[in-house]
Amino acid sequence: MTVILDGRLLADKITQNLKEKTSSLKIKPKLAVIIAGDNPASLIYVKNKQKRAEEIGFESLVLPMPQDVSEENLLENIYILNEMKEVNAILVQLPLPNHINKFNVIEAIAPEKDVDCFSSRNAGKMLCGYQPYVLPCTPKGIIRLLDNYNIELEGRNVLVIGRSNIVGKPLSVMLQARNATVTAAHSKTRNLKDIALNSDIIISAAGCANLVTADFVREGAVIVDVGINRVNGKLTGDVDFSNVYPKASYITPVPGGVGPMTIAMLMENTFELYQIQNQN
Amino acid sequence: MTVILDGRLLADKITQNLKEKTSSLKIKPKLAVIIAGDNPASLIYVKNKQKRAEEIGFESLVLPMPQDVSEENLLENIYILNEMKEVNAILVQLPLPNHINKFNVIEAIAPEKDVDCFSSRNAGKMLCGYQPYVLPCTPKGIIRLLDNYNIELEGRNVLVIGRSNIVGKPLSVMLQARNATVTAAHSKTRNLKDIALNSDIIISAAGCANLVTADFVREGAVIVDVGINRVNGKLTGDVDFSNVYPKASYITPVPGGVGPMTIAMLMENTFELYQIQNQN
Repeated sequence: MTVILDGRLLADKITQNLKEKTSSLKIKPKLAVIIAGDNPASLIYVKNKQKRAEEIGFESLVLPMPQDVSEENLLENIYILNEMKEVNAILVQLPLPNHINKFNVIEAIAPEKDVDCFSSRNAGKMLCGYQPYVLPCTPKGIIRLLDNYNIELEGRNVLVIGRSNIVGKPLSVMLQARNATVTAAHSKTRNLKDIALNSDIIISAAGCANLVTADFVREGAVIVDVGINRVNGKLTGDVDFSNVYPKASYITPVPGGVGPMTIAMLMENTFELYQIQNQN
Repeated sequence: MTVILDGRLLADKITQNLKEKTSSLKIKPKLAVIIAGDNPASLIYVKNKQKRAEEIGFESLVLPMPQDVSEENLLENIYILNEMKEVNAILVQLPLPNHINKFNVIEAIAPEKDVDCFSSRNAGKMLCGYQPYVLPCTPKGIIRLLDNYNIELEGRNVLVIGRSNIVGKPLSVMLQARNATVTAAHSKTRNLKDIALNSDIIISAAGCANLVTADFVREGAVIVDVGINRVNGKLTGDVDFSNVYPKASYITPVPGGVGPMTIAMLMENTFELYQIQNQN
């Protein structure tokens, strides 16, 4: 019997819990989101994040900036948010317009407000095994989801496909810290199928529809699909769900798997940053 | 025919090259090394580093501190070195005495003088794919050695055994950046032999004598031994050299493989930091 890893259900539980904790707070946690340009997917993501934040009872602040915003102007706004005592968490929605240096922007966020652990300073702490302020949302959400179903990580062979700074790289580091044996695959990997067939857990964050097909998956493997692809207007992950499903022991759906967990972790991280900033 | 990856030969070439470049400099690069306590191996390492630096024509400064040095005192000395304009590179010899918080000490080193890329700030840049000032010595030395023998990394399955902050973790990141498919194994890995047998390149940095035996190695694999173990007073690596040798296409000896490369990279990094600090 294959079990669906229900990210929506767990995310709702986490959100509900945050809502209760927030209701008793006099000053509410505040999440600021900067979005540059009018990428339609980004606009939807930001709207969903804002909506979720407000449902919980957080304050939210969205700063939309034009596609041709200067880097200088973008940085200035980050500096202002860094200084605003009531803003606990800052998120810069990616991707940024091409003329903006992503590194400069992300590094400008105050480390203690870097809600996605994107800055090299926080990512480096994580890599070196020191506690960053918060852990990156998507990898954290994936591990929380697996933990919620008591899926063991220690000593298991985990294949992570994709090496982005947002998912693949930090996820590999975090899984290794949980004593998994991690293989990090990517577009230059030659024998993905062989590696996949030797893996207990396959996590695909490649952004490539139908990358993980049934012949990649051994009986009883755990499948986590981080992909969000649009094929003929339909949202689909990296996994050929209908054919992989019967072979897997656990599998995430798209949508309803990792996506809601990412937003829930964003909210949890906002709350955690609020707590850190208000503990003294 | 198995080829020995001669780290000593390449290290000598790099050192000679640095010597020539240094001879024409009016102000010489300066490496400062802090050593706390009297760990015999550490004392030998530091002495070798100092000797090599002076052979090249660098200035060197060794700060020995007692085993019971306070963390405060250690940090103060780092702050002084950070401020000394003539010191280009700072190395804190590990391990530190148990009562010292390693994180605090390493993070205290000015990022632009962090000759081993140990601080989370520099390590994070490396993880995120941004250029840190210099790359960590041992991983850099390993990759340089492989490159010197034209051993391809892209698309190849590389097994890295060991997950220290000094070798395993940064090496995995750097190999991935070179488009290798990296599996990071460690003490909790269950089926090391199976993974090893599927690997084109095996790099062992576990510090465990006779960990990699002939039955772990497929014909034609490349073997890099980072281990330094003392067995019955004799220096030995992680690899059962005599039995693995006939199966390997390339193999590093211990000593004379990775060790000399690490010191050569320390010298090269000192030179690079000098150049960065003097470019304006």
